[in-house]
Amino acid sequence: MTQPPEPRTPAGRWSYFGPAGTFTEQALRTLPEAASVEAVPCTTVTVALDEVRAGESDAAVVPIENSVEGSVPVTLDELATGEPLMIRREMTVPVAFSLLTRPGHRLEDVRVVGTHPHAEAQTRGWVARHLPGATVVHATSTAAAAAALADPDATPLWDAAISAPLAAERYGLEALATGIGDNAEAVTRFVLVTRPGRPSPPTGRDKTSLVLFMRENHPGALLEILDQLATRGVDLTRIESRPTGHALGDYCFSVDAEGHIEDRRLGEALMGLRRICADVRFLGSYERHDGKAATIRPGTTDEEFNRATAWLARLRDGA
Amino acid sequence: MTQPPEPRTPAGRWSYFGPAGTFTEQALRTLPEAASVEAVPCTTVTVALDEVRAGESDAAVVPIENSVEGSVPVTLDELATGEPLMIRREMTVPVAFSLLTRPGHRLEDVRVVGTHPHAEAQTRGWVARHLPGATVVHATSTAAAAAALADPDATPLWDAAISAPLAAERYGLEALATGIGDNAEAVTRFVLVTRPGRPSPPTGRDKTSLVLFMRENHPGALLEILDQLATRGVDLTRIESRPTGHALGDYCFSVDAEGHIEDRRLGEALMGLRRICADVRFLGSYERHDGKAATIRPGTTDEEFNRATAWLARLRDGA
Amino acid sequence: MTQPPEPRTPAGRWSYFGPAGTFTEQALRTLPEAASVEAVPCTTVTVALDEVRAGESDAAVVPIENSVEGSVPVTLDELATGEPLMIRREMTVPVAFSLLTRPGHRLEDVRVVGTHPHAEAQTRGWVARHLPGATVVHATSTAAAAAALADPDATPLWDAAISAPLAAERYGLEALATGIGDNAEAVTRFVLVTRPGRPSPPTGRDKTSLVLFMRENHPGALLEILDQLATRGVDLTRIESRPTGHALGDYCFSVDAEGHIEDRRLGEALMGLRRICADVRFLGSYERHDGKAATIRPGTTDEEFNRATAWLARLRDGA
Amino acid sequence: MTQPPEPRTPAGRWSYFGPAGTFTEQALRTLPEAASVEAVPCTTVTVALDEVRAGESDAAVVPIENSVEGSVPVTLDELATGEPLMIRREMTVPVAFSLLTRPGHRLEDVRVVGTHPHAEAQTRGWVARHLPGATVVHATSTAAAAAALADPDATPLWDAAISAPLAAERYGLEALATGIGDNAEAVTRFVLVTRPGRPSPPTGRDKTSLVLFMRENHPGALLEILDQLATRGVDLTRIESRPTGHALGDYCFSVDAEGHIEDRRLGEALMGLRRICADVRFLGSYERHDGKAATIRPGTTDEEFNRATAWLARLRDGA
Repeated sequence: MTQPPEPRTPAGRWSYFGPAGTFTEQALRTLPEAASVEAVPCTTVTVALDEVRAGESDAAVVPIENSVEGSVPVTLDELATGEPLMIRREMTVPVAFSLLTRPGHRLEDVRVVGTHPHAEAQTRGWVARHLPGATVVHATSTAAAAAALADPDATPLWDAAISAPLAAERYGLEALATGIGDNAEAVTRFVLVTRPGRPSPPTGRDKTSLVLFMRENHPGALLEILDQLATRGVDLTRIESRPTGHALGDYCFSVDAEGHIEDRRLGEALMGLRRICADVRFLGSYERHDGKAATIRPGTTDEEFNRATAWLARLRDGA
Repeated sequence: MTQPPEPRTPAGRWSYFGPAGTFTEQALRTLPEAASVEAVPCTTVTVALDEVRAGESDAAVVPIENSVEGSVPVTLDELATGEPLMIRREMTVPVAFSLLTRPGHRLEDVRVVGTHPHAEAQTRGWVARHLPGATVVHATSTAAAAAALADPDATPLWDAAISAPLAAERYGLEALATGIGDNAEAVTRFVLVTRPGRPSPPTGRDKTSLVLFMRENHPGALLEILDQLATRGVDLTRIESRPTGHALGDYCFSVDAEGHIEDRRLGEALMGLRRICADVRFLGSYERHDGKAATIRPGTTDEEFNRATAWLARLRDGA
Repeated sequence: MTQPPEPRTPAGRWSYFGPAGTFTEQALRTLPEAASVEAVPCTTVTVALDEVRAGESDAAVVPIENSVEGSVPVTLDELATGEPLMIRREMTVPVAFSLLTRPGHRLEDVRVVGTHPHAEAQTRGWVARHLPGATVVHATSTAAAAAALADPDATPLWDAAISAPLAAERYGLEALATGIGDNAEAVTRFVLVTRPGRPSPPTGRDKTSLVLFMRENHPGALLEILDQLATRGVDLTRIESRPTGHALGDYCFSVDAEGHIEDRRLGEALMGLRRICADVRFLGSYERHDGKAATIRPGTTDEEFNRATAWLARLRDGA
Repeated sequence: MTQPPEPRTPAGRWSYFGPAGTFTEQALRTLPEAASVEAVPCTTVTVALDEVRAGESDAAVVPIENSVEGSVPVTLDELATGEPLMIRREMTVPVAFSLLTRPGHRLEDVRVVGTHPHAEAQTRGWVARHLPGATVVHATSTAAAAAALADPDATPLWDAAISAPLAAERYGLEALATGIGDNAEAVTRFVLVTRPGRPSPPTGRDKTSLVLFMRENHPGALLEILDQLATRGVDLTRIESRPTGHALGDYCFSVDAEGHIEDRRLGEALMGLRRICADVRFLGSYERHDGKAATIRPGTTDEEFNRATAWLARLRDGA
């Protein structure tokens, strides 16, 4: 364990779930290192991740969870069962939607609105109030909805797009309305992933992501998992069941735990999970977006673990 | 408690997530009562459910979970936080995909494929092997992808659709390939919902669906929930965290438990959950699609509950 | 449940573990009702209890636990497996020991000291310091040690007795030293028992005593018991394993829980225990000697139980 | 950890709770090594243990638990709070009682019976049936009751003794009746203790004794303890609360767990207990008297612990 930990963010070429102008690009831009990397939009989350796996990119930024819509299944599933990757950072971006049109359009002219289904879900109230007669059709992303409007050679299926504010400037569109999300607090969480390696160094404000596959799908399995964590004083910040794809009712659990893999309590909990699970995939330890320090229960500091280890060694030695 | 329990399936008008030819219609057709009801396709899950809420339909059939893709968020969220509804039945349909074109097309002519994102995810392997150069674009449903091809007045965005087999006959299309799903075991689970009322009568092979809202989002909350169930011998078959929409990390839990609300053990567990949760929404007790009897732990039969109740009464009376 | 609860303390004839002058008589005298009853000393705890069982006495006062020596096995076992009785009250008495002799004796003359083994254990330090050369022999009670000294017709085996202060006046002895216990805080807990009947009425500061017999002696049995209590928010103040007498490693559990059998949370916990145990013996609900109110966790008041019951009834009715 | 483990039984001088002829001497004689050691009776358990502490004896044999009467408090408390000692072996002896008299006595002549209170409790039924008019008085041990009868210079307080069969030959008495215990299965468990040192080597059929002192006496403390053990798959064979002597309701827990301190699962559980407890006293790992192998749950073998440790090291290294 003498090699130095890897830096949290690699240089070079970064893929992201595009096109340009999505919230994902906004998330990428929140990292200071983003200024010096080549940022490459990809058509899908899978493509962005595959470029990293293939060594064509050094990192990828993809959305993983939205405070209104829930997790992004494709990202969870790619990280859980695709060729392994490691999360290095997480970032959040407030989800603010704008209604964009080609310049010169008026609100009363809007008949068809194009957007991503998640964006539709989060602006449903505004659309019902301000565009009661409009039809909403689905684009592959909010930026794609904007891009289609901007393409001078195409006849888009819609005459307005619900997109991230960034899309207006990217595609030369006009915002007829901004802040049209039904939930002003909505945020999306994004992750920066690389190929697996030595985890980022602990910051004291870390989170660890795991995927847990049960040995057999018995009713008490989830209680046993939670117990392995709780007994070592490790709190979860997120737990989600995901189908393994084998059969209805056959789940794995995607979880985020407080703390870093270098923490003694998390290390012991991980080993406990490894022993009772069919498989445990470690997705990385990384600084939390909100900078909150982990809750540390009495008896679970590294120092207390170290003292207990020394005590046990003395007992075994008869010292 | 003298009024008779409601029948499991109401007569009259049923809404379903359409258009015609989706897996949802297939699911609806598996119910014998479907022959005598008026089945009305709706453009979205929300519309189908809203028709029931408004009294325009007597029931709705919507997808809730897929063995490969996971739960259907819009259905879970509508049932969890929309105007209350009650699940009466569940059905499963094997997910078999076909590649459909207008008559006369050949596989080598297919350049653009339209389908729903979930269907795309489940046929990715087949498409990569047999249509390596093709682009996949997203339609609002697999049936919509087929319908667009069939419309003589439109120029569809794609020249082939990945759809349910039923769509071929509905829209007069030709199946260039069938069974193209990557996972031959894939199934989707659907539910029949009505307005709330007296639950369907117990069958001994029942499931109960709940949504649990925490009092505050503390780390031990999930353990406490599982404990209320486990202490009464109630097993879960599904548990899923869903965002409440308020903030990242603020979840409610959507769960399916073995047993019927009329079972003593489930009744006591429900009351326990009601006491520790900010809110518990009861979504219904209904027969399981797989006909499996609930696991009953020693000490948790209705008879044992009744004997314990009588014993306590005697102690309190000093008898 | 219309008959009135029994009064906490019956009138008439009370047996107690004697002889006169023991801590047990002191405990009995702390009850105001003691002034108007006929108090009859018995040679053993068993005899005192058997007089109640036979209807010869209306109540008995016996020691159950000492803060230094632990529980009194014969009392626990009589209550656990003898013909049933019910605890009505508990009282504590500070354990203060005196060294008694016939009048005229001096400390330097004391060669043999008679006392009960528990008293010996609690005065060992004082005896080692002040009577280093003396031998300690065991009497059946501290009062018996004093009584033997006082008997003019006998040649006692000892020339000093370690007894309760009350014994000096009862037997006309002289205290060469008082307060000779090694632990100045030592107290003994006593119980007033009657034949079984309707429990004493709740006071809000109650305790409930139980004996739990396992269905089979498996490793998780104790965890299951604690879980039945914890899930309903019931705290234990005492738990003790006692051999059932069948084989080494075959235990029952003698427990005291906070609260009264009329409390909803305790009633439900009792029923849960009844369902998982081979047998549950209810030993009574009675006011705590320290007057502390029970801890009530959120979600476990009677009112919250009642609201949850009404809620469940509405759900089952479809109201 | 290179020094060799200590042998299970030391040579030299052994103390035991005497006098000669007690069940304790019988227990000592069950060990093959007993033939070659000097066995010295002591008047009390404390004296026997103090001789080991002072280095005057190499080991001591004392009773710790009886299948009918429960644990021997003085032994538990000496081991829990006295100067530290280590348990090396455990042995059990069937508890068979005989009624002994001076030669020539007949049953109908017996008026007063001397014995230890525990022996009285275990022969109460026989005495009530065969000696209904006799008085029972307490001796400090069953052997002392026999010894007093045998002393030609004394006038004993009793004319018959209830003792271990061995006492008849030791003291030249006659057995008027044998096997008079009310419970034919009764056994007593004894331990061989030495000064603390390196634990005896594992045999695969081991038990580990501990005393656990809580940080504060809160209601959930016992659940937390059990949880630390259960999470590592460690089963308890005995748990007993003992007063700490400070106040009523202030307990420590005396426990026996399956397995050896060298077992990975027990080592980790011990460290967990050490971290949550105010103090943990390790009393030794030693072969079980019944030769039963420990239950080993899936995921808790040493090999599985070792594999999990290696796995964690690889993750931390990024290998």
